[in-house]
Amino acid sequence: MEANIMRSLMGCTSFTPSVLIQKGAIIPRRCIYHLCLRTAVSAHGSSSDAAMVIDKQKVAVDILHEIRTEVSRMKESIGMVPGLAVLHVGDTKLSTPYWAPCGFVGIRSFEVHLAEDTTEEKTLECVSSFNDDPCVHGILVELPLPTHMDEHKILNAVSIEKDKGFHPLNIGLLAMRGREPFFLPQTPKACIELLHRNNIEIKGKRAVVIGRSNTFGIPAALLLQREDATVTIIHSKTKNPQDITRQADIIISAVGKPNMVRGSWIKPGAIIVDVGISFVRDRTAPDGFRWVGDICYEEACEVASAIITDVGGDGLLESDMLLSNILTSAKRIHKFL
Amino acid sequence: MEANIMRSLMGCTSFTPSVLIQKGAIIPRRCIYHLCLRTAVSAHGSSSDAAMVIDKQKVAVDILHEIRTEVSRMKESIGMVPGLAVLHVGDTKLSTPYWAPCGFVGIRSFEVHLAEDTTEEKTLECVSSFNDDPCVHGILVELPLPTHMDEHKILNAVSIEKDKGFHPLNIGLLAMRGREPFFLPQTPKACIELLHRNNIEIKGKRAVVIGRSNTFGIPAALLLQREDATVTIIHSKTKNPQDITRQADIIISAVGKPNMVRGSWIKPGAIIVDVGISFVRDRTAPDGFRWVGDICYEEACEVASAIITDVGGDGLLESDMLLSNILTSAKRIHKFL
Repeated sequence: MEANIMRSLMGCTSFTPSVLIQKGAIIPRRCIYHLCLRTAVSAHGSSSDAAMVIDKQKVAVDILHEIRTEVSRMKESIGMVPGLAVLHVGDTKLSTPYWAPCGFVGIRSFEVHLAEDTTEEKTLECVSSFNDDPCVHGILVELPLPTHMDEHKILNAVSIEKDKGFHPLNIGLLAMRGREPFFLPQTPKACIELLHRNNIEIKGKRAVVIGRSNTFGIPAALLLQREDATVTIIHSKTKNPQDITRQADIIISAVGKPNMVRGSWIKPGAIIVDVGISFVRDRTAPDGFRWVGDICYEEACEVASAIITDVGGDGLLESDMLLSNILTSAKRIHKFL
Repeated sequence: MEANIMRSLMGCTSFTPSVLIQKGAIIPRRCIYHLCLRTAVSAHGSSSDAAMVIDKQKVAVDILHEIRTEVSRMKESIGMVPGLAVLHVGDTKLSTPYWAPCGFVGIRSFEVHLAEDTTEEKTLECVSSFNDDPCVHGILVELPLPTHMDEHKILNAVSIEKDKGFHPLNIGLLAMRGREPFFLPQTPKACIELLHRNNIEIKGKRAVVIGRSNTFGIPAALLLQREDATVTIIHSKTKNPQDITRQADIIISAVGKPNMVRGSWIKPGAIIVDVGISFVRDRTAPDGFRWVGDICYEEACEVASAIITDVGGDGLLESDMLLSNILTSAKRIHKFL
């Protein structure tokens, strides 16, 4: 059942697997998640010696089922289903296709493709029509936008109620105590969800977030803080970052510097969440390259108690979080509990 | 000159000093700033042995002069002066009176007092009229509001362009890289200003903020982060907070727990900023009480290299920061550089 769902959803990506299991085969990144992790663990002895590798795929599939159940309940109760609008301007072919997971859970998707030379005014009109459409509960503007457009202006035009979580008002609500954001940005939300569903306590823990991007590092730190962790953000100006990471119970990294965090940076028993991935040349790899995380995976396996990595990930959990946000938005707009 | 300014501005507070210098006299909090600090330093030996106590008053007076010069330049150039509107509902007699410092720098002030039983609707109308008034560039709603009102609703009604920095959109802009907040909340801004004007480097330093209130802890941490410090927020769920503060180059506290931070919590040479003040009973004090900071002042003097404390402060610097925000707002609205 799970394998079928994964296969049908993964088949919609722009990467099509040629071989899934054959040793040494060229296996595109989006398809090797389980295989890669299990090989790495077995290379370091039995699972009792190595860190537990958290199964993102299982959580992703569980969540997908939960969303489907809720969407179905909403449809039966009030005759409405959530809707996601996706706006592509120019060449955004590497972006995630959402119509397959939307279709699976019963969320309607509306994709609009505008030409590369579309004017800013025309693009704003399109955003505005999505804002006004009662069937649309979430709007995703695929980035990057063409260089002749003011990205902030386009993103700020998305109604806060239909934004996917990066609007400054939403970030402010996320930062403030006693306030509730409209959405939680999807990748940080996925990280927290994985920790929760694997019974990893956050409250009272020392957490280090490496990187302070608006799309990941800052919202991830704010989310951890809402969960009562004691949070430190490490960035390019931090001196002796290894001294700080070594004190952390939870390390989350998203900077895109391959193998930056070594085993010696990690406190024994820490939880590792590696969101940074880099594409590096490797002559020994069958196709001359490989994907590498911020945290040296082999060394982390020897020290950490649990690892969550995006290397080899299929992006399904992040896409789940987007769908979950759309469902939340639709429930809020239609006052459906 | 400075003494004259201080006297004239302090005379407008609800605390009127009876005696300023006489030993053992009853000296209200707002008037004893300099006296209290100098006594404490001298009690711990010569100034070369003890921490440098940073002179907030001097910085406050310098800034007041700078604002006055800028307001005057604005008036001469475009014939406009900044305006501050203050709304009091019910009994807010303990709040800071701004008309005196406004008058000194040339900012117009508009104070409205509404009765305790004013309706929420009427209060919102008043806020709305300030929002629409082109002579008003900043709006201050004095808190607490009467209990029959929704505080969030009233505060959110203040136009973001005239808010004093606590609007979630402003906090979001403060949190995000590459974005500029409309205002910086005044007390955190005052702390950073004091560090800057005393040539205390923030970039690359380890900073700990104790407390995560929306009005101080969170914006202070975000501001320090914008200045490239490596920031950790300590809160009620933090385990072993002393281990974290002991690593900090800069400790800023605002929790209102008297003497919580002991000398043993402080790294030798650290910079201390104590914003938390508590009112504690003390039978040995001439009037049976005293004001105490979060950080044990006597012990901090022995370990830290510099101390900024609100105990005995006159609030003038924070009021300066509000006036500076109003000036910035007026310049932005009137496109005056």
